[in-house]
Amino acid sequence: MLLAFDDESGFARLLGAAAALELAAIARHRFPDGELKLTLPERLPERVVLLRTLDHPNEKLVELLLAAETARTLGARHLTLVAPYLAYMRQDMAFAPGEAVSQRIVGRFLAGLFDAVITVDPHLHRTETLVQAVPARRVIALSAAPLIGRFVAQQGLRPLLVGPDGESHQWVAQAAAAGGFEHAVGRKTRHGDHQVQIELPAVELRGRHVVLVDDVASTGRTFARAAQAAYAAGAARVDVAVTHALFVGDALAALAAAGVREIWSTDSIAHPSNRVGLAPTIAAALRGLGAE
Amino acid sequence: MLLAFDDESGFARLLGAAAALELAAIARHRFPDGELKLTLPERLPERVVLLRTLDHPNEKLVELLLAAETARTLGARHLTLVAPYLAYMRQDMAFAPGEAVSQRIVGRFLAGLFDAVITVDPHLHRTETLVQAVPARRVIALSAAPLIGRFVAQQGLRPLLVGPDGESHQWVAQAAAAGGFEHAVGRKTRHGDHQVQIELPAVELRGRHVVLVDDVASTGRTFARAAQAAYAAGAARVDVAVTHALFVGDALAALAAAGVREIWSTDSIAHPSNRVGLAPTIAAALRGLGAE
Repeated sequence: MLLAFDDESGFARLLGAAAALELAAIARHRFPDGELKLTLPERLPERVVLLRTLDHPNEKLVELLLAAETARTLGARHLTLVAPYLAYMRQDMAFAPGEAVSQRIVGRFLAGLFDAVITVDPHLHRTETLVQAVPARRVIALSAAPLIGRFVAQQGLRPLLVGPDGESHQWVAQAAAAGGFEHAVGRKTRHGDHQVQIELPAVELRGRHVVLVDDVASTGRTFARAAQAAYAAGAARVDVAVTHALFVGDALAALAAAGVREIWSTDSIAHPSNRVGLAPTIAAALRGLGAE
Repeated sequence: MLLAFDDESGFARLLGAAAALELAAIARHRFPDGELKLTLPERLPERVVLLRTLDHPNEKLVELLLAAETARTLGARHLTLVAPYLAYMRQDMAFAPGEAVSQRIVGRFLAGLFDAVITVDPHLHRTETLVQAVPARRVIALSAAPLIGRFVAQQGLRPLLVGPDGESHQWVAQAAAAGGFEHAVGRKTRHGDHQVQIELPAVELRGRHVVLVDDVASTGRTFARAAQAAYAAGAARVDVAVTHALFVGDALAALAAAGVREIWSTDSIAHPSNRVGLAPTIAAALRGLGAE
């Protein structure tokens, strides 16, 4: 059975169909004081998959606590979390003494609730494998990069794929290989939540079609600076392809102001820019889990 | 050491002074995507008291997870949570099949993070003792009812204390005993989050000064209906005394419209109606814990 929260029913229907899982809803009631009441189906099978993408994660983490514990009292023995976007993965060390290493804390919290965790393109920088961050019995990190590469190729485009910084290299290289494109990566220096500086790779951009590729876009400032730099270097057209479309605040306006033409994202987070569907890929991973 | 979040420094100073504990702040940074970064003092002593009142609890529960786990990595061996208002205590059973019993789930979550939990007037209805809801090694449920009774007496008032329903009996009786007042309780029927019906106790209210007493006020509808009923029965004046001043939405307007004259609350939740300080009572409980 696939359990989904009532505000995520669109992706849930796609995933239920692709994975051939019966779909059931978790109803949420919010009391006037901010407390939540969750209602699950009365009886659950032994194996339950819970879908929750974790953008704007704090309240959703409490929902997962309530839902997972309740699911076990209703008969579930094996709980899989499908979190197409996994939060808190970027806080993987204490950058200053006393800082919470949120990645490990949230990872252990999820591993305590779920037997298996499936996600897509988790932002692992200094952490090599997802299981170090989320020590559940079974963890699967899928990548949307090949899907993004094939999507761009299917549009009949032959761009140069550019990753804004070294961290994006893994995604850019995979997307380029899948689409048969050239690729290159730049360098990023961050001066604050909204302040970044991008140094483009030393390749000829004059007259080229550039697609900027990364795993996640939050304020959009990294993409915006990279697009400005690409146009300054003579690029003819700049688009953006990204796995996780957080796009908070005025992110889209910043991209438009930088001259970005098209934005393509996966449906890990519901957003008007969604073009690449993840349900088939996640369904295949679920089938693999079930066959173990 | 007393650790307090940067938005709760007022009560933290009072409690630190009353308990003779060194006060230190937990700094919070909110990233644009909604994730939180907490920074604690670099080094912590063995015994740490963490203050967090849990109105609007969901994000605060995540903060407690991050703070408690980080505190242990920084040297804390014994963690006490002081939550003057404890959330999710009213959801103590599944009122419909499949409902999350949030009280037990949140209680176990807190017990997993903290060695001791101190709170004030937890709303335990069908649960007899706090440790059933929050199975930490040491749990202390203080009551503000005697403080409220003495506060009313100190104003030179001689009111009849009225609890709006049977659940309020424990608080009304204690407050009345402390202040030397008569008391009585009514009956409540709830038809929804904002819809309640109050049947007043069968005592003569004509010309009387009535103080309505309860543990928590959220939408204020229970107090408002009780005040209207008291005036309809001839009461000369109606005030409200409550431990936890949630007062969400238009609660204060509803009380004013019902003719409530004064509202007195404890400082368990910061609110303009706060008149009764809890710091000395909580400090005494902390001293008792430390002496164990």
